[in-house]
Amino acid sequence: MCAVYASVDLGGTNIKAVLADDQGNILVSDSVPTLSYEGPQKVLERMARLVNDLSQRSGHKPLAVGMAVPGLIDLAAGKTKFLPNLPTQWRDVAVRDILEPQLNCPVYLLNDVRAATLGELTFGHGRTARTMAFFALGTGIGGGVAIDGRLRLGPLGAAGELGHLVVMPDGPQCGCGARGCLETVASGPAITAEGVRLLLSGLAPKLHELTGGDAGKVTTRTMAMAAAAGDEKVRDAIIRAARFLGYGIVDVIVTLHPDLIVLGGGVANIGALIFDTVRRTVREQVHMLPVDDIAIKPSQLGDNAGALGGIALAMKGGNV
Amino acid sequence: MCAVYASVDLGGTNIKAVLADDQGNILVSDSVPTLSYEGPQKVLERMARLVNDLSQRSGHKPLAVGMAVPGLIDLAAGKTKFLPNLPTQWRDVAVRDILEPQLNCPVYLLNDVRAATLGELTFGHGRTARTMAFFALGTGIGGGVAIDGRLRLGPLGAAGELGHLVVMPDGPQCGCGARGCLETVASGPAITAEGVRLLLSGLAPKLHELTGGDAGKVTTRTMAMAAAAGDEKVRDAIIRAARFLGYGIVDVIVTLHPDLIVLGGGVANIGALIFDTVRRTVREQVHMLPVDDIAIKPSQLGDNAGALGGIALAMKGGNV
Repeated sequence: MCAVYASVDLGGTNIKAVLADDQGNILVSDSVPTLSYEGPQKVLERMARLVNDLSQRSGHKPLAVGMAVPGLIDLAAGKTKFLPNLPTQWRDVAVRDILEPQLNCPVYLLNDVRAATLGELTFGHGRTARTMAFFALGTGIGGGVAIDGRLRLGPLGAAGELGHLVVMPDGPQCGCGARGCLETVASGPAITAEGVRLLLSGLAPKLHELTGGDAGKVTTRTMAMAAAAGDEKVRDAIIRAARFLGYGIVDVIVTLHPDLIVLGGGVANIGALIFDTVRRTVREQVHMLPVDDIAIKPSQLGDNAGALGGIALAMKGGNV
Repeated sequence: MCAVYASVDLGGTNIKAVLADDQGNILVSDSVPTLSYEGPQKVLERMARLVNDLSQRSGHKPLAVGMAVPGLIDLAAGKTKFLPNLPTQWRDVAVRDILEPQLNCPVYLLNDVRAATLGELTFGHGRTARTMAFFALGTGIGGGVAIDGRLRLGPLGAAGELGHLVVMPDGPQCGCGARGCLETVASGPAITAEGVRLLLSGLAPKLHELTGGDAGKVTTRTMAMAAAAGDEKVRDAIIRAARFLGYGIVDVIVTLHPDLIVLGGGVANIGALIFDTVRRTVREQVHMLPVDDIAIKPSQLGDNAGALGGIALAMKGGNV
C-alpha cells in the first residue's frame, strides 16, 4: 500500500471520518456526534481525536486530510465563511490553523457537495468523464461542476450551487431568500410536502395504507412505494419534481455541454421514475447539441461520495 | 505594426470582413452580399476575394483568418455542421479546405456568438475578467461562456447556447423545438410581439404616436422610446423580458460564479430599463455568493465584437 489519506465530514449531526488509500479503497471509518453547540474549538478537537484514533487503530498515518464543510469557505485561508446549518459562531473559523497542529499533516477544506462531486469525479463515474455536474438531492439541493476534469470552484468555492438554478419564475420561497430555486420544487421536503397534501386530501389511498394516515411518515421513499403501488397522483407529484430537475439539468447542459450528469441523495433513490422523467425532459428541451451522448446516472459512490471526495482533496493537496 | 490578421463573418445577408492588428485595431473592413442560394462554393470564393481585396488595398497580408459561422461547426475538421439560417446545402461543408488554398493562410472556424464572446474577452471588457458570459440579444439569443480566461466550447463548440436556458416551464414554443427557452421571452421578436399586442389593444398611446399605429414599425427601439415617453404597459413588457433574462443570468452565476456578464444586441441597446431590471433580479435571486462583485455590462465592442473575435481566433491559431 503506497499512500493513505484521511477525510472528515463536518455534518450538522455527526462528524464522519475515513482513512483510504489513493485508489479510493476505504480502510477504516467511524463517526462521533458533532454537538455543534459546544463551539468550533471543542468540536474540532473531537474531530482531530477521531482521525488520530483511526490512524492508531489501522496503523496508517494519513499524509493529508480533506475536510468536507457544509457551506461556503475561504479556500486559500482554510477558513469557514457561511455555514447555514451550524450556529453562527462557526463563521470565520480558521479550521486549518486549528486542525493542522493536532493532526500533524496538511488539512484542506472544501464545500461538502463539491467534495462529493470531486469524489465521483475521481473514484466514481467521473473517471471516464471530462465535464460533469453532480446534483445532491436531499433536504436541500447541493451541486458541483467539473470542467475538463477539474472541479469548478470560482473565487469563493461557491460555483456549482445548482440547487439555486431558477426553474420557476416567482415560485416558492427558498431558504436562501430567493424564489423558485430548483431546491424549492425538487428537494426531498418539496416532494414530501406534496405527498402530505395528497394524503390529507384523501387523494393517495396507497400512501394512506403505507403510512397508516400519519403525515409524519410521508417520505420520498414511502411516496415512491405508493406510486409503484398505483397512486397516480403521487406518481404525478414525483414526475413534476423530476421535470423541474430536468430543467435545471438542461441549464447546465446548454451552458457547458457536459458528458455526464450524476444524481445523488434520497430523491435520486426514488429511481426510474426520476431518471426516466429527467431524461425525457432533457430530450424535449435540448436541440442544440446531441443529448444521447450525455449520460445521466445515479451516483456510483452513494453515501461515500463526500468521504472519497475528501480523500481526493487530500491526495491533490487542495489543488482540485 | 507587428502582425495583421483577418476576420470574416458569414451572415445570412452579408459577408463582412476586417483586417486588424494584434491589438484589435481595425485597419480596413468591407462587406458583400452573401447570396447564400448560390451555394457554398461560390459564396466562399466571393469571401476569399473580399479578404484578398482588403489585403491588397491595405498592403497587409493576414497571417491567418478567423471565420464566424452562424451555427454549429466541427471545430477540428473546419467543417460546418448545422446552420439554421442558411440553406441545407450549407451542411457539412469543408470550409477550411475550400478557403485555405484561396487565402494562402490558415483558416479557423467558430460559431458567431462564441466569436463575439472571444472578441469581448480578448479586446473588450473581458480583458480584466477571468470568467464571463456573453448574451447576444437579437432576433434570437446567442451566447458564449469563457472560464478562467478560455472560451468554453465543449466537444462540438455548442457549449454556451444561453438562449436555450429554460426560464419558463412549459413556456412558448422555441424555434429549436423546445419550450420556454430564454429566447422565447427575451429576444427582440418576443419583446416586439408584446408591443404589437399592446398597440393593437389600444394600450400603448405613445407607441401608437411613434409608429403611426403601424404594427410593422414596432421594434425594441420604438418600444424603448414609448416606455420613456410614459407608456406604462410597454415599460412593463420590457421589464418582464428583462426579468426572464435575469433568471438566465442567475443560472450562469450559480453554476460558474463568473466575474462578468456582457449583454449585446438590440435588446441590450434598450439600456437602463434592461440593465437595472437584470441587476435587481440577480440581487433578488442570488444569495449563495456576493453578486456585487459580478459586473453586468453592455458590450464594449458592440457590432465589432464578432469581427474582433475572428481576429482573436486567428491570432490564437484556433486555440481559444
